[in-house]
Amino acid sequence: MGQNHYKRDDRDVQFVLKEQLGIRKLLEYEVYKDFTIEDFDMILDQAAKIAANDVAPTFQDGDREGCRFDSGKVLVPKSFHRCWGVFKEGGWFALHAGPEYGGQGLPLIITEAAMEFIMSANFAFCCYSGMGAGNGGMIERYGTDAQRRMFVGKMYDGTWSGSMCLTEPAVGSDAHMVSAKAVPEGEYYRIQGTKIFITSGEHDLVENIVHLVIARIEGAPAGAKGVSLFAVPKIWVNEDGSLGEPNDVACIGTEHKMGLNGSATCVMNFGENGGCRGHLIGQAGMGLAYMFDMVNIARMAVGLESVAFGANIYANCLAYAKERIQGVPFGKKGERVRIVEHADVRRMLMNLKALTEGMRALVYRAYFLEDIAKASPSEEERKEAQGRMELLTPLVKAYCSDRIFEMGREGIQILGGYGFTKEYPVEQYTRDCKIFSIWDGTNYIQSVDLIGRKLNMAGGRVFREWIEEVQSFTEANRENEVFSREMGLLKEALEAIVELSMVYGRYFTEGKLDLIPLTSTRFLDCMAEVAVAHLLLDQGLIAVGKLGSGICSEVDARFYKGKVETVRHYVWNFLPQVFGRARIIKMEDTSAIDIEEECL
Amino acid sequence: MGQNHYKRDDRDVQFVLKEQLGIRKLLEYEVYKDFTIEDFDMILDQAAKIAANDVAPTFQDGDREGCRFDSGKVLVPKSFHRCWGVFKEGGWFALHAGPEYGGQGLPLIITEAAMEFIMSANFAFCCYSGMGAGNGGMIERYGTDAQRRMFVGKMYDGTWSGSMCLTEPAVGSDAHMVSAKAVPEGEYYRIQGTKIFITSGEHDLVENIVHLVIARIEGAPAGAKGVSLFAVPKIWVNEDGSLGEPNDVACIGTEHKMGLNGSATCVMNFGENGGCRGHLIGQAGMGLAYMFDMVNIARMAVGLESVAFGANIYANCLAYAKERIQGVPFGKKGERVRIVEHADVRRMLMNLKALTEGMRALVYRAYFLEDIAKASPSEEERKEAQGRMELLTPLVKAYCSDRIFEMGREGIQILGGYGFTKEYPVEQYTRDCKIFSIWDGTNYIQSVDLIGRKLNMAGGRVFREWIEEVQSFTEANRENEVFSREMGLLKEALEAIVELSMVYGRYFTEGKLDLIPLTSTRFLDCMAEVAVAHLLLDQGLIAVGKLGSGICSEVDARFYKGKVETVRHYVWNFLPQVFGRARIIKMEDTSAIDIEEECL
Repeated sequence: MGQNHYKRDDRDVQFVLKEQLGIRKLLEYEVYKDFTIEDFDMILDQAAKIAANDVAPTFQDGDREGCRFDSGKVLVPKSFHRCWGVFKEGGWFALHAGPEYGGQGLPLIITEAAMEFIMSANFAFCCYSGMGAGNGGMIERYGTDAQRRMFVGKMYDGTWSGSMCLTEPAVGSDAHMVSAKAVPEGEYYRIQGTKIFITSGEHDLVENIVHLVIARIEGAPAGAKGVSLFAVPKIWVNEDGSLGEPNDVACIGTEHKMGLNGSATCVMNFGENGGCRGHLIGQAGMGLAYMFDMVNIARMAVGLESVAFGANIYANCLAYAKERIQGVPFGKKGERVRIVEHADVRRMLMNLKALTEGMRALVYRAYFLEDIAKASPSEEERKEAQGRMELLTPLVKAYCSDRIFEMGREGIQILGGYGFTKEYPVEQYTRDCKIFSIWDGTNYIQSVDLIGRKLNMAGGRVFREWIEEVQSFTEANRENEVFSREMGLLKEALEAIVELSMVYGRYFTEGKLDLIPLTSTRFLDCMAEVAVAHLLLDQGLIAVGKLGSGICSEVDARFYKGKVETVRHYVWNFLPQVFGRARIIKMEDTSAIDIEEECL
Repeated sequence: MGQNHYKRDDRDVQFVLKEQLGIRKLLEYEVYKDFTIEDFDMILDQAAKIAANDVAPTFQDGDREGCRFDSGKVLVPKSFHRCWGVFKEGGWFALHAGPEYGGQGLPLIITEAAMEFIMSANFAFCCYSGMGAGNGGMIERYGTDAQRRMFVGKMYDGTWSGSMCLTEPAVGSDAHMVSAKAVPEGEYYRIQGTKIFITSGEHDLVENIVHLVIARIEGAPAGAKGVSLFAVPKIWVNEDGSLGEPNDVACIGTEHKMGLNGSATCVMNFGENGGCRGHLIGQAGMGLAYMFDMVNIARMAVGLESVAFGANIYANCLAYAKERIQGVPFGKKGERVRIVEHADVRRMLMNLKALTEGMRALVYRAYFLEDIAKASPSEEERKEAQGRMELLTPLVKAYCSDRIFEMGREGIQILGGYGFTKEYPVEQYTRDCKIFSIWDGTNYIQSVDLIGRKLNMAGGRVFREWIEEVQSFTEANRENEVFSREMGLLKEALEAIVELSMVYGRYFTEGKLDLIPLTSTRFLDCMAEVAVAHLLLDQGLIAVGKLGSGICSEVDARFYKGKVETVRHYVWNFLPQVFGRARIIKMEDTSAIDIEEECL
């Protein structure tokens, strides 16, 4: 077992859930009426304990022992097996799934808050533990009754797991071009194709893996509409649910990666010997549409992963900074001090704190909206929440995943030379997270999804309503005693966003589409910074209120005072980047496309 | 042997040396009068060949095989031994050192241009190959005749190598606090102390290692003035130059690191058994002053390392982007295209190209200034060059090392999922480079060196002269046909720098010193962007001139056309960041120091 670097706490998680979002509201929904706040607390408390005690000690094992590929088998780090047992015993695989097949039926926001702790502890383990319930959920949603009975229960309880097989050697970002084939054969399909970059495609934690494979039924139309979804078990499942013969699914190799070494990234061959069968899930031709369900959840999860990493990077750097003695503060004379007393280190710590809390505010909001969209009794509220959630998803995915890599850099810098060593966990988080900006739709894809689709959803209404909400917020609080200057800055930044959205609108109407991909990632960051600043200032107001109430404990008061400075730090150090980027966007520089390819 | 990923070329190196800096001027100096331009060309040509054919194949070995620590011995990757032989045979260790002890006597700028190729090929190897000549140079400069005769020749020809022993477990950035002890004993000193993070502290490439150790002579005053420099050979060297007994120097462990695995980072014990002797180098109490000679060169080298990595990251990403077919460009319909045709990928490629060429312009300028400062016949020119070089050094070190990590990120993004794998070299460059922002003075230390010392050198004259030079440049070219808008932007950015320098001046006079470390790294980046934009625009004018001359070859014309767009890309995409940062600096946010420690 490796060293346990789990140092983070759960105070801000509690704050966002209860004091900002108000998860109590969920208890009023029919589907959650049997839960109490105490149930939620217990779940979170238990998850934090498992994270700290059971999962965190496997963090380094994942990296150092890694996965061993040996003639078709993948052996995961030994300590992962024990964790799997802990998960199985506690029923941690399918917290959000409905109870019919053994899920816990918890709201998504509680599920994911619990998972934040586990992801802080060892995300490589989550790459296995999350896939069974994810795939099971897809089969429960789109499969037949027979398929549900055959697969879902065992995928929810960790007996079997899953993988999502989309990417092919020549097909990554353009998923609709898949070439894997499916030929009807009785009630099943014969599957043939190679899939690459398959997370958890093969491993030794379970007796069976039910792959969800995207393939094209022979004779289907070209493009997205010809693509279908298949459940392809590694070992064929008999109708009585017992295991049959191996299903001609072969892992032919694993990737050697920069990070996430504990997570097996597999090259999978389906039907190399013509003997691979699969179940069509749902309707033929709907494969990509179904898959995007899962991709959407995966995109939100990328945000959560980033928050989880950030929280533990911050906690480790803070602990180090409070102990490490080095140098005299700038312009001072006298004794050497702990580096937490150096303004530059303090600034970097605050960057980590503000970004972690800012990202959490954004990500949790998105999950909460998803819960409302699913379970609110009011159709209007459901619709509104769904739209807002979709609007925020590209921000969640891209903003957070780009920030976390920078935060890794900052954390390493705080640790100095030690940051470059494997003695501290920050370098591993930095390596592990580098895939976040790429998988589940690159961050560029998120940015064109935002500008090309999300801004115009429902004729622009969804975006407009968000603008109006931020606007009213700054308006209502512009004379706030503590945050009036910050509200002014947010207002100004929001105006920049509105202006940029009109610039992009003009590009569409004037056919200047080339200009969009040159700046779209910058626009996404701008909008995310406004969204985060809004949510953080909302938190700041809550904190000020609590401090003014005169009834909060000393511990709470420390948290609220810290929150006020953290909000301020974000607003003054990150939000103003909007103005610089907006200026660059409006310059409409085209050098990157003007340059001839031969001159590159 | 690993895969050879050396893909870069030398066209921009040639351009900077000959067309921008005009290295021909160096041939007029007495010390270089026996060289010809053809000699320089031959050296660079040979270096590029050795880099590509001999050193580059060891790049992956360094990472994968790494260094093996075995009971006090460090075994480097096997293929490094062959490279060492190639270096020895060709006399590549001491290109810049004077000929008296076997150096090649080349200008620094030619030496370092040659080393850029080697560093692109495998920087971990350079961590060994550069240390012998570095330490040898120190002994040649500050040692006695006897010490010179004893050590220098064998350090220049690769028979022995060296290490620089400064950092201790409790002493990193505050080097003057070292606790290693030196007790006089006859003509030598008995050395005792532990040093950590010692690059090349122990390895099996040579028969002896001459460590330069910073220690405090018993009874010496506290602080910087009590610190002296000692040459401490691993194996004692007899007066006749033969090897004697082991000198009680022990490597007791090596660090496990994020990158640069091929470079041994050692924990060194000197005199654990009371049997370690060292030679005092130069005067007692001057240790840090001498060491800073070397540190200064090391800081410039960090810039060069960054350029070297950038060049090969760019070349690898470009090659991939020209081959990889994926997706249809934004807003278009039809066939899938190579990703080099996607505007977003093109933008990222241009970021890499512009930053590599911009950093090279800055770094090479600094080296060239050092050559002038050392060898110009005009005292005034020497003095001016020295000042300008010192002014630019923190920019070279910090700006380049922060950028190269971001460039690694960008390169990985261009490669998509493959970027996260070890199949491509970019992830390794990204890991390897992470130490650059930390060693040889963290980037924060560079930024306070800039604001606290460099801006005020010679009563501010050095800084003022730089300002005036950039000012006259924009003035002289403000109606330039190709770059008039760019000149306007540079002028505006320069004005922001001037304003910020006055802001900092005010902090000093008003005693608001706390505000400086909160923003100094941002100011450094601003000033570096102005410096780089200036040098790139100068290149742009040269390129336009050549294109207009009507006599350049087709190949050259491609390069010049590319240069014009590259310059433009930098000016419109990087330079405007100055304005956003300047605004943030002037906001004078102090949340990071206002927050109480217990609230963190």
